[in-house]
Amino acid sequence: MSQASTTAVAPASSLPFEHWLASRGQRAEQALEHLLPPAAAHPARLHEAMRYAVLGGGKRVRPLLVYAAGEAGGAPAAALDRAACAVELVHAYSLVHDDLPCMDDDVLRRGRPTVHVRYGEALAMLVGDALQSLAFEVLAAAPAHGTSASATAAMVAELARAAGSTGMAGGQAIDLASVGAALGREALEDMHRRKTGALLRASVRLGGLCACGDGAAPTEACARRMQALDRYADAVGLAFQVVDDILDVEGDAATLGKTAGKDAQRNKPTYVSALGLDAARRLAGQLREQAHAAIAPLGEAARSLAGLADLIVLRKS
Amino acid sequence: MSQASTTAVAPASSLPFEHWLASRGQRAEQALEHLLPPAAAHPARLHEAMRYAVLGGGKRVRPLLVYAAGEAGGAPAAALDRAACAVELVHAYSLVHDDLPCMDDDVLRRGRPTVHVRYGEALAMLVGDALQSLAFEVLAAAPAHGTSASATAAMVAELARAAGSTGMAGGQAIDLASVGAALGREALEDMHRRKTGALLRASVRLGGLCACGDGAAPTEACARRMQALDRYADAVGLAFQVVDDILDVEGDAATLGKTAGKDAQRNKPTYVSALGLDAARRLAGQLREQAHAAIAPLGEAARSLAGLADLIVLRKS
Repeated sequence: MSQASTTAVAPASSLPFEHWLASRGQRAEQALEHLLPPAAAHPARLHEAMRYAVLGGGKRVRPLLVYAAGEAGGAPAAALDRAACAVELVHAYSLVHDDLPCMDDDVLRRGRPTVHVRYGEALAMLVGDALQSLAFEVLAAAPAHGTSASATAAMVAELARAAGSTGMAGGQAIDLASVGAALGREALEDMHRRKTGALLRASVRLGGLCACGDGAAPTEACARRMQALDRYADAVGLAFQVVDDILDVEGDAATLGKTAGKDAQRNKPTYVSALGLDAARRLAGQLREQAHAAIAPLGEAARSLAGLADLIVLRKS
Repeated sequence: MSQASTTAVAPASSLPFEHWLASRGQRAEQALEHLLPPAAAHPARLHEAMRYAVLGGGKRVRPLLVYAAGEAGGAPAAALDRAACAVELVHAYSLVHDDLPCMDDDVLRRGRPTVHVRYGEALAMLVGDALQSLAFEVLAAAPAHGTSASATAAMVAELARAAGSTGMAGGQAIDLASVGAALGREALEDMHRRKTGALLRASVRLGGLCACGDGAAPTEACARRMQALDRYADAVGLAFQVVDDILDVEGDAATLGKTAGKDAQRNKPTYVSALGLDAARRLAGQLREQAHAAIAPLGEAARSLAGLADLIVLRKS
């Protein structure tokens, strides 16, 4: 614990949200830069491509959720770095695989050529595979950074479930099968709860678990905080996808850094196609309110979580 | 611990090797069957394909190494089941991705259509991704099965490193880059130490760590045992690949369950192409002796490890 406490950052409640956002975004960036193998390390082309995939910008929404949720419970900063990187590495791996020709066949991501365009399909697949492994390697080292071994085992289980066949990968499999199908709202929510919601939820929960001390025997305060975080994560996870679907219709390639209107072109079911644009906008607003209500019991310590809910709903890209 | 000790199996030293082999092979099969999601669970096609990928036979060499190494130190049987499944799930995921058109483009595996032939490329990629996640989910639950949380965190880190960019995925990236190249013996060994050796070594080490109680503070006896296991794993890991290369030249598709001579056709560097067939056979024999010598200090408790070294070198497929 001593190592972690010496790296404590300024508490969330003492910073205006925009400063907090810049500070934690930078912290996540530095941690990723540090935890990814150097580009020159053997095998160099793979490592170069892994860094290209992860360090090419990105909003770092998942790391920010980890920091905000963890700081709401007073988690050690160094352990949060590990959890923040782990969720972002899983997210980055999923983008690399999602962009492959056999999946979405995207050539542009964050305004740059996708990994398979730049490095070839075979290496892109290995980049994704290796990033997933790295996520668990990074997380498994949390006990050296202020989190108990049992909380770490709980975090590994949580992240693995969120990434796996009933979480993110499962959501992508449902997405694959649903191209051209008219999904009802319930089926659409089920798909997105897995495809994007599970990892967003895991980000919030991993932050919370970092603050729980011993994962095997959480205190009552920790259990209550985790319940509030779960409700927050459910609302924010859904809101994220609803806003994504709205932006896919409204946005243009320059703002999004990817091809706009692509889901509609592909005849993929979206919240906009299921509900209409106005109803989708109203739903996003309601989910934002739900997120705020969920964390109200946590008081001032959850101010960054509230700010992130606003950011996710009000973003323009 | 109480749960684990009630599921203890007959100690290795009381069983003839062939009986031990059948018993532990069956144990691994049942554990995989139990830990993979049911084929009917949503999303069903993904789960069906995951089970197809894992439960289609296979020699289960890695699980057997976990059991043999763990039993040499008296590890709880239920924890070994977890570790055994985790390494086999990583192995299975790598085969599914390796067989894809952008990699080796294989249509036959264990005498059956490969996953992408049967289920399509996109789903095959997701099968591999989800199997890797499942490996870590399964392993993270080890503390409920008789292993300490800190040993579990150490095992997760070990498996992640073995699978990642400096281990298995890294070896595959080197393999990709080396098609048509004349690798020297050193470069060839480096590639195989990563591509197949790292996961075989992790199998032996995970078994050993299950017997180490508290991974954060291993006893002197445990540290000595781990050293012997490391030397054994190095020899067996290399032997495995040398014999694979020999069988690729000698074998036929019926025995191997895959297309023989394919590495040579593709102009991939192998031990046979680097050393010649006779020298490759001599090397396999020497590595078998090294493996036996490494575990001699562990005495009768390591009998199954000795048997597995023989099996790996003397196998015909």
